Amino acid sequence: MTFTLHPNLARDAVAIGRFDLCRVLVINDANYPWFVLVPERAGISDTIDLTAEDHAALWTESRVFGAAIMTAFAGDKLNVAALGNITPQLHVHHIVRFTSDAAWPGPVWGVHPMRGYTDNELDVVRDKLQGAGITGFVLERDRL
Amino acid sequence: MTFTLHPNLARDAVAIGRFDLCRVLVINDANYPWFVLVPERAGISDTIDLTAEDHAALWTESRVFGAAIMTAFAGDKLNVAALGNITPQLHVHHIVRFTSDAAWPGPVWGVHPMRGYTDNELDVVRDKLQGAGITGFVLERDRL
Repeated sequence: MTFTLHPNLARDAVAIGRFDLCRVLVINDANYPWFVLVPERAGISDTIDLTAEDHAALWTESRVFGAAIMTAFAGDKLNVAALGNITPQLHVHHIVRFTSDAAWPGPVWGVHPMRGYTDNELDVVRDKLQGAGITGFVLERDRL
Repeated sequence: MTFTLHPNLARDAVAIGRFDLCRVLVINDANYPWFVLVPERAGISDTIDLTAEDHAALWTESRVFGAAIMTAFAGDKLNVAALGNITPQLHVHHIVRFTSDAAWPGPVWGVHPMRGYTDNELDVVRDKLQGAGITGFVLERDRL
């Protein structure tokens, strides 16, 4: 079975880079710096469905990426979550939260309408990720 | 600095066991089989605040525990999340979801009032965990 991105993720997010295991997307909602890590494995719904090796790789990538975005965006709190009740392809949210953000202190899901990025705003996000020098992360600028 | 459980967790949950790193609590809400893993490290708010070694241990315990509760409760979906916007002590939610549950398919936070367990219901939860034979997990029956 070949990995293909779930259509809900393709609809709601923009590819922005990749690690060895995970494709990295930015959710097209400028309300929050909101990313998802999607392990490029077919037929996986829950974190526990990954092999032990892939599970460890996912969380290593999560640690590197989470630390980088918290620094790059100067966030107050990091939210990390694998829910997937509506979109059953495993994807792990990494959301930089601010005490001033639209949903604070609640979770972000379903609270506010998504506010799509402008091209310029997306470039700013890319520049921040590139500037962060994230180990093992390859930025993708050509996948808009 | 010594680890002590955050008062919000002490108020909302019941200690039910422990792994090497994490204390395991059950949220006192019988609407969902809802557990939290709390690394017994002082002053940690985000997953990324853990050392690399503790971070790896947390997710190894998460994998073992998540798989066990999904089997023990015959769940449809596992939700795993580290949010902590209100309770800043790192705690990782592990929630067994059912397509028939009260909040499905949305997240569980803040949707329905908590429905406290009876002693008998809590015993059933403990029995399920004990029966699951979870590697590295020590059940605590005396911490009600």
